[in-house]
Amino acid sequence: MRRPVPLPQCYRLLNHGPTVLVTSADGARRNVMAAAWNMALDFDPPKMAVVIDKSTFTRELVEASGEFALNLPCRSLAALTVAVGSATGRELSPDKLVQHGLSTVDGSRVGAPLIEGCVGWLECRVLPEPPIQQRYDLFVAEVVAAWADERVFSAGRWRYAPGDDPALRTLHYVAGGQFFATGDPVEAARA
Amino acid sequence: MRRPVPLPQCYRLLNHGPTVLVTSADGARRNVMAAAWNMALDFDPPKMAVVIDKSTFTRELVEASGEFALNLPCRSLAALTVAVGSATGRELSPDKLVQHGLSTVDGSRVGAPLIEGCVGWLECRVLPEPPIQQRYDLFVAEVVAAWADERVFSAGRWRYAPGDDPALRTLHYVAGGQFFATGDPVEAARA
Repeated sequence: MRRPVPLPQCYRLLNHGPTVLVTSADGARRNVMAAAWNMALDFDPPKMAVVIDKSTFTRELVEASGEFALNLPCRSLAALTVAVGSATGRELSPDKLVQHGLSTVDGSRVGAPLIEGCVGWLECRVLPEPPIQQRYDLFVAEVVAAWADERVFSAGRWRYAPGDDPALRTLHYVAGGQFFATGDPVEAARA
Repeated sequence: MRRPVPLPQCYRLLNHGPTVLVTSADGARRNVMAAAWNMALDFDPPKMAVVIDKSTFTRELVEASGEFALNLPCRSLAALTVAVGSATGRELSPDKLVQHGLSTVDGSRVGAPLIEGCVGWLECRVLPEPPIQQRYDLFVAEVVAAWADERVFSAGRWRYAPGDDPALRTLHYVAGGQFFATGDPVEAARA
């Protein structure tokens, strides 16, 4: 049910502002963290931006490998998203993914793993911008592959509709362990 | 009903990934555009990032003034949000805000107007980063004042709950005139 998303459409995975899980790997070292602060940055070639704090183990792995993946958790992964965002993976053995019982598949273009049970995935290569990485913890990356769960995203669109399975809605972080689920569609007539 | 938001809490206005309306002014020239590509960047002092394309009149006003405001439209403004995102204000007289019948109040710390009927507002001063402005149309700014409609945001939290007025939910842009409304709360137990 994981299907490729054509790269010029992959900004639509992030357009509605979901919280993501950032996975990274450098050799055998792997990690996962949560990130509400992400956005699309360009259409084609697709680029995105994400904030990765200096204190995180993810930052170390991303700077070492120049790669990461964004995984879009759905409502059924809300507790997991809070959990992996609440403690560092720096000293963990086995790694944080294993500790939380996460199944992963290999990225197709990057070394970062993709988390099963998520509903969207973007494989990203860092576009090095040392001044803004240092000043703002701000990373810019090119998206080199993208995937989505065809049950909820097809033909370039999220297909969420009233009455469908609420467990598959993406998440929008508020604070303190609270999210909003993605709500129902609003169609606005063009002017 | 527009109440100040303490600056260290203002990232929570953007955390859940809403689409915003960017207002700007340079002297008597004013404009408004829609922007799905925005995110929080830091807590205190609060910073945020937004993409403002080189082709836009907003870009010209933001570069001239060093300021802008983000206005968070709610569901009742969905058609307006598409409309102001679909045509340039460069050659309009009166300006795009007047053409769309928008009422505004003055910003408290910036010259950009604040749009009435929105449910959150962030007044922003550009932190000049010419290389990323030029390469990615990416603007970093400090938030110098923030406001929210107390009916939906109080004590640092969005208060959306099942059964409340759907017209006041914020919007998350998909594509082609379609949004998702912010959905219902999801409480995740901390691990």
